[in-house]
Amino acid sequence: MRSLANHPAARGLTDDAAVLPVGNETLILTHDAMVERVHWMPGQDMADVAWKLVATNLSDLAAKGAVPIGILLGYTLGEQEERFVAGLRAALTAFECPLLGGDTVSGCDGARSLGLTAIGRAVHTPVPSRSTAQPGDTLFVTGALGAAMMGFEALQRHGADHSGADSAAFRCPTPLLSEGQALAPIVTAMMDVSDGLLLDSWRLATASGVTLVIATEEVPIAAPEDRRSDALRWGDDYQLLFTAPLSAKLPVNAAPVGTVEEGEVPLILDGLPVTDSSRLGFAH
Amino acid sequence: MRSLANHPAARGLTDDAAVLPVGNETLILTHDAMVERVHWMPGQDMADVAWKLVATNLSDLAAKGAVPIGILLGYTLGEQEERFVAGLRAALTAFECPLLGGDTVSGCDGARSLGLTAIGRAVHTPVPSRSTAQPGDTLFVTGALGAAMMGFEALQRHGADHSGADSAAFRCPTPLLSEGQALAPIVTAMMDVSDGLLLDSWRLATASGVTLVIATEEVPIAAPEDRRSDALRWGDDYQLLFTAPLSAKLPVNAAPVGTVEEGEVPLILDGLPVTDSSRLGFAH
Repeated sequence: MRSLANHPAARGLTDDAAVLPVGNETLILTHDAMVERVHWMPGQDMADVAWKLVATNLSDLAAKGAVPIGILLGYTLGEQEERFVAGLRAALTAFECPLLGGDTVSGCDGARSLGLTAIGRAVHTPVPSRSTAQPGDTLFVTGALGAAMMGFEALQRHGADHSGADSAAFRCPTPLLSEGQALAPIVTAMMDVSDGLLLDSWRLATASGVTLVIATEEVPIAAPEDRRSDALRWGDDYQLLFTAPLSAKLPVNAAPVGTVEEGEVPLILDGLPVTDSSRLGFAH
Repeated sequence: MRSLANHPAARGLTDDAAVLPVGNETLILTHDAMVERVHWMPGQDMADVAWKLVATNLSDLAAKGAVPIGILLGYTLGEQEERFVAGLRAALTAFECPLLGGDTVSGCDGARSLGLTAIGRAVHTPVPSRSTAQPGDTLFVTGALGAAMMGFEALQRHGADHSGADSAAFRCPTPLLSEGQALAPIVTAMMDVSDGLLLDSWRLATASGVTLVIATEEVPIAAPEDRRSDALRWGDDYQLLFTAPLSAKLPVNAAPVGTVEEGEVPLILDGLPVTDSSRLGFAH
């Protein structure tokens, strides 16, 4: 598939979103799909599924410092349609993002799948990329990791239709749109943490051709200390991971968690080089 | 869902595509989904499925007189991945349209579904709409209807993996991009015929608040004469249906098939008013 993406806007399909200059604007385009039993559990409130579908796509826009313009939805008819529309309405209202179009199709048998395309407008060019981290920079993350993991486990304990606050981070993540917009002029590289801090750091390092040296005990977590290793490997938190000079005046709270160095190996964790990404996180 | 689409670009979800002014350009955005067993048969060559997924989306751009800028793909892993990529490559090359991004997700059990978002740039503003047919205009169609129906029936006779020319119109339709671009400055209303000439005429009439008076024997068909009624109700032909003054100098071949009149009833077929769209065509 990657060989088809030879347009510069596609960024080789290795970035969070496509970056497309159109006239005097720069558009940010992203499409994420969600499949029942892979991305959500049967029995989950479809309002939460709709919210998450919107939020995860808008998180890709956040990583590009973009303002949402609208979404297009691919929707498979099925159960809980009213709940889905309610969740969609809540998310679009919360993020001030209109539904521009899409397609509704008859249900297939088996698991449902949903697709969403989000379109945004860059507030700053050049648009932040994964591939431009500079040796000498510091690696930052905007907040604690592991909240979605704890939320998922609460949902497993209570049942898929549980709607308590203890599972909200998994069910209803928040894309950090204003944070991404504020950071865009300052960062040297940025992405959202969708598949775990360690795996996404590996990807940022690989795209930039640098080594990220991470002190794992510096990473803020939203989980018990004995779950630190899991919290750094679990996805779905949608914090922003970025590099910037240590002297940069940051417009948002962010924790320094490592440094950017020259090197061949993408990651050095607590002094140990990592040469294989297979145990770093969650790949869909 | 329609109540969420209150942005003017969404055109109330009743048009072929969203029309979004961005800076000094006007973007055309559309998203179509395809589901196995609903939109294609198990056993069909996935190269044809990929081609058709691209072609049907680009046909929506054609109806808006747009030049394709790129696509985003939502792809569910499954069988025949190499064939899918081959068909995708063929379509993107034929229509000079790059892959900009998308998402690949693990397969669900049961039927696969695919989604595609196409983005285009309008070559003429105002962008053609379904809702602006004018009483006094003539209704035209760019070519013969029923070719996809005959192709589908050939596929049913020979088996889903048949690849003969007699099924090509169903398997590999061609979006009329250059025709749409040439017609955009001339038409008063335009859409592509995806769900059958009669049902799509009903929709154009309803959106415009006019009556379309169609002489069914004037409609060019690509099927035996005794299948005329079916050919006018079968979808998937992707001809362009448009209204224009009879005196307009058309830049492409098109057959006059009816007239636009004032009235409450959307369609008059061979002198008979049609007040119910349920038997006019194929609704997904």
